[in-house]
Amino acid sequence: MTLIVQKYGGTSVGSPERIRAVAERVKAWRAQGHDLVVVVSAMSGETNRLLALAKELAAEPDPRELDQMVSTGEQVTIALLAIALHEIGVPARSYTGAQVAVKTDAAYGKARIEAIDDARMRADLAAGRVVIVAGFQGIDGEGNITTLGRGGSDTTGVALAAALKADECQIYTDVDGVYTTDPRVVPQARRLHKITFEEMLEMASLGSKVLQIRSVEFAGKYNVPLRVLSSFSEGGAGTLITLETEDDMEKPVISGIAFNRDEAKVTVRGVPDTPGIAYRILGPVGEANIEIDMIVQNVGADGLTDFTFTVNRPDYRKVMSVLERIAHDIGAREVSGDDKIAKVSLVGVGMRSHAGVAAKMFETLARESINIQMISTSEIKISVVVQEKYMELAVRALHTAFDLDAAV
Amino acid sequence: MTLIVQKYGGTSVGSPERIRAVAERVKAWRAQGHDLVVVVSAMSGETNRLLALAKELAAEPDPRELDQMVSTGEQVTIALLAIALHEIGVPARSYTGAQVAVKTDAAYGKARIEAIDDARMRADLAAGRVVIVAGFQGIDGEGNITTLGRGGSDTTGVALAAALKADECQIYTDVDGVYTTDPRVVPQARRLHKITFEEMLEMASLGSKVLQIRSVEFAGKYNVPLRVLSSFSEGGAGTLITLETEDDMEKPVISGIAFNRDEAKVTVRGVPDTPGIAYRILGPVGEANIEIDMIVQNVGADGLTDFTFTVNRPDYRKVMSVLERIAHDIGAREVSGDDKIAKVSLVGVGMRSHAGVAAKMFETLARESINIQMISTSEIKISVVVQEKYMELAVRALHTAFDLDAAV
Repeated sequence: MTLIVQKYGGTSVGSPERIRAVAERVKAWRAQGHDLVVVVSAMSGETNRLLALAKELAAEPDPRELDQMVSTGEQVTIALLAIALHEIGVPARSYTGAQVAVKTDAAYGKARIEAIDDARMRADLAAGRVVIVAGFQGIDGEGNITTLGRGGSDTTGVALAAALKADECQIYTDVDGVYTTDPRVVPQARRLHKITFEEMLEMASLGSKVLQIRSVEFAGKYNVPLRVLSSFSEGGAGTLITLETEDDMEKPVISGIAFNRDEAKVTVRGVPDTPGIAYRILGPVGEANIEIDMIVQNVGADGLTDFTFTVNRPDYRKVMSVLERIAHDIGAREVSGDDKIAKVSLVGVGMRSHAGVAAKMFETLARESINIQMISTSEIKISVVVQEKYMELAVRALHTAFDLDAAV
Repeated sequence: MTLIVQKYGGTSVGSPERIRAVAERVKAWRAQGHDLVVVVSAMSGETNRLLALAKELAAEPDPRELDQMVSTGEQVTIALLAIALHEIGVPARSYTGAQVAVKTDAAYGKARIEAIDDARMRADLAAGRVVIVAGFQGIDGEGNITTLGRGGSDTTGVALAAALKADECQIYTDVDGVYTTDPRVVPQARRLHKITFEEMLEMASLGSKVLQIRSVEFAGKYNVPLRVLSSFSEGGAGTLITLETEDDMEKPVISGIAFNRDEAKVTVRGVPDTPGIAYRILGPVGEANIEIDMIVQNVGADGLTDFTFTVNRPDYRKVMSVLERIAHDIGAREVSGDDKIAKVSLVGVGMRSHAGVAAKMFETLARESINIQMISTSEIKISVVVQEKYMELAVRALHTAFDLDAAV
């Protein structure tokens, strides 16, 4: 007998009919002899409905009171799921984050879990009950209700699995797993049976929005096997996210291709190539609350250098105005930018032991006459920036070149 | 400086605009130097919306889970009121029943308050904050959320006032006080400045649905001065409900006239006038979960007696079929009934010391040729049953006869 933590998101519990379907699924797992802890989000649309009420009263509502309010979304869902389970003969009991208790710090709206008391859950499981826990929420040391921030229900699921030493944490979502790349761009994209935490982090942070990054970090840290499954289709095994294991030696070099259209590139040309220049450029950008992604600095000539970095596209105008303001002070010859770019990344732990991945990537893009504007690498990832209009072509060509296409 | 507990019902907090209006009212009371604890209900319609969701999943939802769910209604309102108060510069903090804590027994859906911890509220008041508490809910010894049943927010208000030894508990509602009778029936009805707990109980249980009966009992038991005020109009002093005091000697004999159309009368004729006959008739009625209101048994003749009682009108068919079933067993000659009756009651603590109230009542009704079908009396109340079509005439005639009409 195994202990499984399941997490169902807002769409999966978006209506009484959907909640009934989740109850039937839980019943089926239980019938196979598993112990179950089920984490649910608020019904889709509910959190936004509540936030809209608060926004009618204040432009910036008090964070404590906002958490007090939005936490009710999951509280409704846990009770409804318990009612649905009772109705089909499955003993179950629901708990808010405060009741479990999921103890967090007091950072309202983005609280971090500090500890989880498993006594109540263990007692219910021992009594044969399904335990239902409200995702996304906890309680601070003073008894105030906190929330973990958007998508925090994934984190709740992983944290409960870690605390209970569960055999697996299953994240039910509207896709049936993690794909080699977005199937809307590459129809031949394949569902991955297995992927490592590291790879998933790179895939997630690069735009494959299947799982919250924090929950993957958490799962990696506590080594909780994580499985992404569809709550809308039956029978699929989804994608298992775990630590690298021996049989991964047989894994392909590249697990997937991530991409992100939501980027803009900024170049500061002809700045003096002196120590501290990077800070003098990026300091003011950071102070303006603009997040920076890739940074490239070329080797200079004549004591001057060029400096290029990427930001989220919505920040493009803001970053340009910051740079134009400081250009004179830092002695830059020119500031230019381009918001019609995209980033394409190869991700795979296999890269560590296989040379030639970069070469093959660049060769593939060259064959398609796609110019590479920036390159950035990490242990398990190579990212390139290309013109946005070539992005889909680049992804498809790389998908084929690295043998990721599904057999048709 | 005084400590005031205010309670606002669902209509008073039914929209962001209404919540803003409540916040302004709270601010005005605070500006007068009062300490304030504010109890709020769920926004009107919210509890029914939630119950409807549960009913889609189960005909009889689990009571614990139902409380877990419906308690979120008030939790949303407390947070919104706190946000609205912050927005106009009033420090405030909201608490659920569990957070305060309002400790109750475990009778889900109809829990009774056992104790209230006032430490957190006292600390906030001392720090100059308005304390906002979710009405209608509490927490049992196991940490489960409970609700006090419909209208329980009034009870929360009174219980908090008792625990805090507040100077007054103000119940804001959609009427501006307690009237001598329903102004829709008698346009000359007057608002009462003062009424005793006992009188209010009789008025409430007889159909003047301004306050929940339980909250009045509670206020009487702990001697919490209770004031009914309108949340929709400014400036009125409402009606104060207190213990009888010396200056009540000047009070009129009758405080008000209550009435109830929602009754039906049943008569069992010619039953043997033997000990135990009342039980043999009413036992099966009680077992069928039918509540009985007035009971009259006439002195019998020839060893037989007639037995008449009233029930809520919706139970009329049910009670008739119970009686027809047992009629033979108890040796009754005839069972008959009438669901076109109404009850009219005079209420007043002044009755205790004034003879002749009954005589004057009967005389007034006789003058209007209204036949009295049943009579029942208590220390501070006389009730009569009349044909329903005469009810309004009876109420108006009595209102004038007992000098209750407002000066026009």
